[in-house]
Amino acid sequence: MNSGASDPVLIGLDWGTSSLRAFLIDAEGRIREQLASSDGIMQVPGRDFDAVFRVLVGPWLERRPLPVLMSGMITSRNGWVETPYVGLPLTAAELARSLASHTTKDGFKVHFVTGVMTQGPSGPDVMRGEETQIIGALAQGSRDGLFVMPGTHSKWVTVRTGQIEDYATYMTGEVFAALKEHTILGTLVEPGPFDAKGFDLGVKVGLQTGCHLLHDLFKVRTLPLMEQMPKTSVAEYLSGLLIGAEVAAATEGRDPAQTAITIVGGNDLTNRYERALKQAGLSSTRAPEDIVVKGHLMIAQSAGLVRP
Amino acid sequence: MNSGASDPVLIGLDWGTSSLRAFLIDAEGRIREQLASSDGIMQVPGRDFDAVFRVLVGPWLERRPLPVLMSGMITSRNGWVETPYVGLPLTAAELARSLASHTTKDGFKVHFVTGVMTQGPSGPDVMRGEETQIIGALAQGSRDGLFVMPGTHSKWVTVRTGQIEDYATYMTGEVFAALKEHTILGTLVEPGPFDAKGFDLGVKVGLQTGCHLLHDLFKVRTLPLMEQMPKTSVAEYLSGLLIGAEVAAATEGRDPAQTAITIVGGNDLTNRYERALKQAGLSSTRAPEDIVVKGHLMIAQSAGLVRP
Repeated sequence: MNSGASDPVLIGLDWGTSSLRAFLIDAEGRIREQLASSDGIMQVPGRDFDAVFRVLVGPWLERRPLPVLMSGMITSRNGWVETPYVGLPLTAAELARSLASHTTKDGFKVHFVTGVMTQGPSGPDVMRGEETQIIGALAQGSRDGLFVMPGTHSKWVTVRTGQIEDYATYMTGEVFAALKEHTILGTLVEPGPFDAKGFDLGVKVGLQTGCHLLHDLFKVRTLPLMEQMPKTSVAEYLSGLLIGAEVAAATEGRDPAQTAITIVGGNDLTNRYERALKQAGLSSTRAPEDIVVKGHLMIAQSAGLVRP
Repeated sequence: MNSGASDPVLIGLDWGTSSLRAFLIDAEGRIREQLASSDGIMQVPGRDFDAVFRVLVGPWLERRPLPVLMSGMITSRNGWVETPYVGLPLTAAELARSLASHTTKDGFKVHFVTGVMTQGPSGPDVMRGEETQIIGALAQGSRDGLFVMPGTHSKWVTVRTGQIEDYATYMTGEVFAALKEHTILGTLVEPGPFDAKGFDLGVKVGLQTGCHLLHDLFKVRTLPLMEQMPKTSVAEYLSGLLIGAEVAAATEGRDPAQTAITIVGGNDLTNRYERALKQAGLSSTRAPEDIVVKGHLMIAQSAGLVRP
């Protein structure tokens, strides 16, 4: 703990499918301590979430009792406690009203931030965890606009007048992995360092593919087969093609001059999306790191668990 | 052999990736005898194509010497003899001029029908084997128009004034398998008999998905998750979604009243494409079975290997 730091007022957990992060948060939304674990909800032995929580967060709570907020896939069907979705539009106040309280086997009281559902023309869309990050970004001063959250299932979230107004999920990351590992498209892949040329070419085609993705995918095979592309570019080309197609779909009909895009995340994928957006003529900024912590604090304050 | 049948004049082989069929063909293009084997080019032990040929076709050739024509992936990089592609537009005469001759280790002379390449804006497209089937369909009296050949990599072939004018490959079948077996979309699948309702609903969304396929795919997860679709419909819905997207792309900009569509093939997949085309407002007919045999005869006649 830093000397002179204000006392923690909240414990926040971002508990996802493949990992878990826990934060000790002060009244200004600063992180006093943090822990990371690979105990994502699909990795918890015997689904004993109580045990994971006890080992990870128990010592903090024994040191001093604090309210606990959790967000992410932990509230899904495969999580600890399945909570009903809330609808759109959405604010921190609504998420605060919808908190699901639960007492662990060890007697710790915890609060779950529930997920969001929206019904589109072709079916429902769902998210759990991303809403808390967006609330945090808004608390940090992010403008209205479009937030892209790259990942296995990337989310594009529309914010207007400070509310989450709409969002859409794209399966890009998981489709990339399945095509690369389990179709003929992967057989000509040769590994190498990031190949910007291959990626940019893929983005270019992806931005224009329109309804022809199932056709243009075949070119990931034929371009190296016909020696029109080095094999070290194949994986990047496929990545660019899919991300380009996603960017085109998610920004369809938007005026670039009127569209403020914020990228959430801080990994290799973030760089790719930034690059693809630039090629599409769209400028973007990056959300600060750990906005989820600001989201936890904002919701906890709104729920009266922490003094504003 | 039927009594009164005319003598065979040609041996034709359709040698693909996963299977092989051999035909003893008479001067009218009728099949006198046929053999099938699972020795597709990727299944041949030690790539000893000579041995497979000797065992399967040797007895016919020992009975009486006949010209031998082979088409399919057997002329690809992973095949027996890799042959250069020909371009478009394409006729039987051009395929006859491009035959690649080869003498097997056992001294049998054989002729390979080579494949076709076309260069599109996003890269090359290739096929090996389908061109021979289309030549056969044309010899059988099929009209000009669009031929759809469902499969792992389905082909849409445009024929005008009796020539193969253009074609495009769609990876639909392989994408379906990869998504169903290797993504979260497969986890809620429950097997069952063909579910027409699920398939038709998928087709409906696929026909309209436009550039949003990576988004609409996520609904294959959320619809059963939200109990808006039975789990026994999930696989059919995914199949319909992808086939619908393919049909929309492959027929984009075509006037239904002016588009004669012929479906090539005779399996479960053929029924699905027929159903999807109907939903798209497009009528279709089916090519006769074994048109590849007519293609072999047509090309052999054009090459002077068989008297017309």
